[in-house]
Amino acid sequence: MSNDAPIGVFDSGIGGLTVLQALRHVLPQESYVYFGDTARLPYGTKSPETIVQYAAQCAAFLLSHNVKAIVVACNSASAHAVEYLRARCKVPVIEMIEPGARAALRIGTRIGVLGTRATVASMAYDRAIRSLNPDALVVSQASPLLVSLAEEQLVDGDIAERVVARYVLPLLEHDLDGIVLGCTHFPLLREVIAAVCGRHVALVDSGVAAAEELCTVLGEQAACAPEGSDPLLQYYVSDSTTHAGPWLRALIGDVPLQCVRELPPGV
Amino acid sequence: MSNDAPIGVFDSGIGGLTVLQALRHVLPQESYVYFGDTARLPYGTKSPETIVQYAAQCAAFLLSHNVKAIVVACNSASAHAVEYLRARCKVPVIEMIEPGARAALRIGTRIGVLGTRATVASMAYDRAIRSLNPDALVVSQASPLLVSLAEEQLVDGDIAERVVARYVLPLLEHDLDGIVLGCTHFPLLREVIAAVCGRHVALVDSGVAAAEELCTVLGEQAACAPEGSDPLLQYYVSDSTTHAGPWLRALIGDVPLQCVRELPPGV
Repeated sequence: MSNDAPIGVFDSGIGGLTVLQALRHVLPQESYVYFGDTARLPYGTKSPETIVQYAAQCAAFLLSHNVKAIVVACNSASAHAVEYLRARCKVPVIEMIEPGARAALRIGTRIGVLGTRATVASMAYDRAIRSLNPDALVVSQASPLLVSLAEEQLVDGDIAERVVARYVLPLLEHDLDGIVLGCTHFPLLREVIAAVCGRHVALVDSGVAAAEELCTVLGEQAACAPEGSDPLLQYYVSDSTTHAGPWLRALIGDVPLQCVRELPPGV
Repeated sequence: MSNDAPIGVFDSGIGGLTVLQALRHVLPQESYVYFGDTARLPYGTKSPETIVQYAAQCAAFLLSHNVKAIVVACNSASAHAVEYLRARCKVPVIEMIEPGARAALRIGTRIGVLGTRATVASMAYDRAIRSLNPDALVVSQASPLLVSLAEEQLVDGDIAERVVARYVLPLLEHDLDGIVLGCTHFPLLREVIAAVCGRHVALVDSGVAAAEELCTVLGEQAACAPEGSDPLLQYYVSDSTTHAGPWLRALIGDVPLQCVRELPPGV
């Protein structure tokens, strides 16, 4: 595998672009192939079996682009499909949960987790945090409406505040040190979540933590793109998305999204 | 085709069960096969091409159960896929838009429409209403968060009221006679929508209107199940759904949902 090979990144939709942004911040010289499975989003309301099936197809699509690593930029897929993917992919598979858990424990031992229904039901953050520190307290809150708010770009104002408060206030009763933004959509709501939390509760962005993890893994394998590389960015989606236009442009600039309607069978 | 053959009903998820309820109210002696494409829901945020592809597979699945008619219990699929389905299916295809348009015009000529982004973008209600009465006023409002609220069963209280107000108040500025609930999820929010609208604006349930249409079509074809038939109800979904349990039971009782993971190629 050439060091110039791109890094593959997938999500159920375009929320994973917040992770890609973090990756590019930490590893700006790398090339990336992003795939958003917009024809079947969201994943966070689907069953574990369905999430595994979809993730396996996303990984196969990325591998067909000769990626040197895969980043599962979706917490629901990280929670349910990573063992499956790691058993079948020859390249490193970076996921969101364990890096997020480690970053949370750097803040304190009383941790809240906001996630999709699938992520919270998996108990993946609970397990990851407690395996690192068995004395940690973990309280999780499924927050499905936050995904819709982010997708609708309704990220401030009265409705966003009330929906965030509905999910966050019960968590705050546990005297938390930090809250993990356990869905790649939630950094878009960071300001309103921070306002509801107040300054004594830190917010942990799993995407940023996963970017650091990828940096470490590529370094260990001496697989980083050489300095001065000319990075290539490619964006693919399984369904054309039109309404997220302004937000998309802010994240990725004027690079077009390419629509692929047929995915390979899963890995 | 035997008169005892079932009627096929499909939706992107379980919102179409509100339509099935209306169908069973009008045609209680009929058997029904319901299919909810829960592995790929929602449809209302997807592109026309993807909605057609999914609807074609839903129809093929129902036809494999020898249905005598297909009810497209999803406004987004009705708006984009009905011509395609009618050109390929030998059985009658009943959809939501035209019956809803006709029911709306029985109330008045100043009509609001609440729908998904896909339904509103299609202008299907606008065309259907104006083709029946060119002088009618039609104002539409894409209301994507209402779908999420209904799916989360957050159908009353402060957040529901504010989200409904956000979408409905701009419509009310047009001095409307009625508002079409142009998504099969929205009847679940009927009470809060009615409270925001006040008593002078009638709400039109396209599902009820479509049920009357099906009754007429079966009558014309002398295809109704005979009196005293013992109706059979079958419910299929493409992904297991667990969280909607209590709501599901209220709508369909204790009949199990059967999960089918492989759909036939489309019609």
